[in-house]
Amino acid sequence: MPLEKSATITSTHFTCSCTTAGSRAASFKRGLSTVITIKAVRRAWHKRIVDHDGDGTKPGGIEKWLRLVEATGLSRDLALRSAGILPATRYAVQAYVEFVSTGSHLEAVASSLTELFSKRLITLRMDRLRQHYPWLSGGLDYFTGRLTQATEDCEFALSWVVKHAPTRREQDLAHAALRAKCDILWAQLDALYFAYVNPGWPPPGAFQPARES
Amino acid sequence: MPLEKSATITSTHFTCSCTTAGSRAASFKRGLSTVITIKAVRRAWHKRIVDHDGDGTKPGGIEKWLRLVEATGLSRDLALRSAGILPATRYAVQAYVEFVSTGSHLEAVASSLTELFSKRLITLRMDRLRQHYPWLSGGLDYFTGRLTQATEDCEFALSWVVKHAPTRREQDLAHAALRAKCDILWAQLDALYFAYVNPGWPPPGAFQPARES
Repeated sequence: MPLEKSATITSTHFTCSCTTAGSRAASFKRGLSTVITIKAVRRAWHKRIVDHDGDGTKPGGIEKWLRLVEATGLSRDLALRSAGILPATRYAVQAYVEFVSTGSHLEAVASSLTELFSKRLITLRMDRLRQHYPWLSGGLDYFTGRLTQATEDCEFALSWVVKHAPTRREQDLAHAALRAKCDILWAQLDALYFAYVNPGWPPPGAFQPARES
Repeated sequence: MPLEKSATITSTHFTCSCTTAGSRAASFKRGLSTVITIKAVRRAWHKRIVDHDGDGTKPGGIEKWLRLVEATGLSRDLALRSAGILPATRYAVQAYVEFVSTGSHLEAVASSLTELFSKRLITLRMDRLRQHYPWLSGGLDYFTGRLTQATEDCEFALSWVVKHAPTRREQDLAHAALRAKCDILWAQLDALYFAYVNPGWPPPGAFQPARES
C-alpha cells in the first residue's frame, strides 16, 4: 500500500503523504459525522495522494523517489523492503504518522508547513547534488516535481491554518505542531549525519557504504 | 500516570515498565477471553509494575530514577515534564511502546531479553559512574535495584520465551523482537552521543549543558 510504503521508504520529503495517511486515519476515528464536515479538507488534500501515488499515466512521487534510489546505485527492492534503513529514521517517521493520526486536523495540516521553506531548500539541494554527485542527476525528478507541488501545498495549508486558528490557543497548537515536525526532520538529519559523516558509525543492520557501494 | 512517565522520562533502563505497559495495552485489545488465558503472564509481570511504581513503603524504580536525575544537578520537574529530552530518544521509546502494544505476547516478552546482559553492564556502569562522576554516587540506587531485579526478570522472561516458542517461526519472532529492542536501545545511545559527545550538537530545544549546567 503506497502510503505505508512512503512511511517506510521515508525521507524528509514524504511530509505530505504521511500527513495524508494520518489525516485519513484520524478521520475514521472521528466517525462519520465529522468526516462529512471535513469533506472539504479531504478534497483539498486528495491532490497530495495523487501527487505521490501517481495518476496512472505518469509517475508519482513514490515512483520518482524509487528512481532516485536507483540513481544512487541501490535497488528499488532494498528501499521497498526498508532494508538497511536507519532505525532512528524509522522511529522518527513513525512518530510523525502517530502525530498526525492522533492530533487534530489543525495540527496535522500545520505540521506540513515545513514545506513553506521547501522551494529555496530544494533548489539549493538540487544544485549541490548535481555538483557533488553528478551521477545522481538523472534521478532528481522527485525534487523537480516537489518544487511546484510543495509551493502549492503549503500555500493551501497556510491559508487553511490561518483560517482555522483564530484564537491564541489554536495558534499555539499550530505552532507546536510545526515545531514538532521540525524536531522530526531534524532527528532524521542528525541520525544520517551520525551514521555516515561524523563520527560515521552506522548501527548494526543499517546500510554500510564501504561494503555495499 | 507512572507508566507513561516512565516512557517519557525514559532511558535504556525502563525496559520492563514499557514492556509492562505494552502488554497491558495488548491485553485489552485482545478481549476478555484472551485476558483469562494470559492471566499467568500478567501475574508474573505484575512484579515489574511494583518494581517501578513502588509498593507504597519504599521507593520504586521511577522514584529512584528521579533521584538519579537530581543527583546530576537537574530538577525532577524537568524530567517529569520531559523538558529538554532529545526528540530521537522520545521517538525510540514511542517505537518501543508501539512494538510491545501491537506485537504478540511472545514478542513483547522476548524484547525484554536485553536484560540478560544487564548485570554485567550495570556493574561496569556503576563502577565507571563512581569513577568519572563521583558526585552522582548518592543517586545510583536505581542501578543497585536493577542488579537484582533485572536478573530475576530476565530469568523468568527467558524461560517463558523458551517454553512459548517451540517452533522455528516463533523462535524467529522472538529473535527479531530482541533484535528490534537492541535497535531501539542503540538509537538512544547514538542520539545521546551525537548530541553531547561527537559532534556534540544538541538539537534545538534539547538540554544544553553549557547554558543549563
